[in-house]
Amino acid sequence: MTKQKIVIGFSGGMDSTTMLGVLLAHDFEVHACNFQYGSKHNQYESYAIGSIHKYYKRIGQPFELYHFDLSDIFKFTKSNLLKSGGEIPEGHYESENMKLTVVPGRNMIFGSIMAGLAESIGAEYIALGVHQGDHAIYPDCRKDFIKAFNHAVELSSDKKVHVKTPLLKLNKTTILKAGYNLLNVPPYHLTRTCYKDQKLSCGKCGSCQERLEAFANIGKIDSIEYENR
Amino acid sequence: MTKQKIVIGFSGGMDSTTMLGVLLAHDFEVHACNFQYGSKHNQYESYAIGSIHKYYKRIGQPFELYHFDLSDIFKFTKSNLLKSGGEIPEGHYESENMKLTVVPGRNMIFGSIMAGLAESIGAEYIALGVHQGDHAIYPDCRKDFIKAFNHAVELSSDKKVHVKTPLLKLNKTTILKAGYNLLNVPPYHLTRTCYKDQKLSCGKCGSCQERLEAFANIGKIDSIEYENR
Repeated sequence: MTKQKIVIGFSGGMDSTTMLGVLLAHDFEVHACNFQYGSKHNQYESYAIGSIHKYYKRIGQPFELYHFDLSDIFKFTKSNLLKSGGEIPEGHYESENMKLTVVPGRNMIFGSIMAGLAESIGAEYIALGVHQGDHAIYPDCRKDFIKAFNHAVELSSDKKVHVKTPLLKLNKTTILKAGYNLLNVPPYHLTRTCYKDQKLSCGKCGSCQERLEAFANIGKIDSIEYENR
Repeated sequence: MTKQKIVIGFSGGMDSTTMLGVLLAHDFEVHACNFQYGSKHNQYESYAIGSIHKYYKRIGQPFELYHFDLSDIFKFTKSNLLKSGGEIPEGHYESENMKLTVVPGRNMIFGSIMAGLAESIGAEYIALGVHQGDHAIYPDCRKDFIKAFNHAVELSSDKKVHVKTPLLKLNKTTILKAGYNLLNVPPYHLTRTCYKDQKLSCGKCGSCQERLEAFANIGKIDSIEYENR
């Protein structure tokens, strides 16, 4: 039987790596898209992605990896998440200042490129790693956006492509639980979550804080190294 | 009074040049986005775009021009419109074989990038040059797609950006009429419409044929040079 193809957004972080692991466990033919967009942490994401790609190949669950360099497209974009922007704020994700890390149009741009790729390679689905923890500050992670985006993708592709969001009802903690429930637990020690422009994960930005909380919540050790834990 | 900003898709063809002319006449601050995506006619479009940009500057109606190179993104895309694809079909646009020129996800990808730019520069609107002549073969030019896409853009941007399609109710003939009704008729002699990979417009592809018909319909001379007229 031929495997079902799916195109996913893949950042090398905890969420999309869990999504990847779950889809590989369910025997999908995964086409994973990584987007470079001038973010401060892109370089460190790339290391993570390369290691995770090798890891799954080694354990006999290979997936296709695509790199899209969108730095030129995002060079007019204002966001503190980007190299062109200000400092990455510290503190919990829901705080007002984390809004500075919003990247206008990001998921819509990534998703549209993924949908175009899916149509071209004959994949019926694209999957975005958005989840419950995101919605508060990022408009393009909210459920109503995803619904509208799916509708647009379906019409753009003459119903050949549909949008899936396997993590939408989960939060960081339940995502991690789902990963630890797999026979092959995703290689969390290879993932990269921190938003900062430094090799060592800071442990202070909203992204790091949520990750550490999730590990604490399920009583597991996060084995990556942190500057502050 | 500050001018209202608008981000438009601009290919250097007859339709988007008319849209540009109309918006400049209505005193918008126009930010025009050209997308290179590996199409056979991209190179000739670029000449046209450069000339039109200079033209409007010379007559005191300057606009901002952005070039986005998406050839890497579209390298997996299957379409005869692209350098990677087969021959450009000849004959009228509505024929079945013109479907080979569909580029999966094109308008959605272009539009999403434009929406991200609009949000970043504080433009309330993006405008796409889709029109009535397109709908039959291109799903991403149809009215229901545009409606869904606008909804997704509004939700992605927290209602800061909206999608306009000033040409949606027009066809090639009425678009041209609208252009000739302007005080400054758009520089149609500088535009490029042909889909083929050759300097001289072929006069045979669906795109050329529709252009020639439109000029004939309004009783004007199309002053560009053709291989076959």
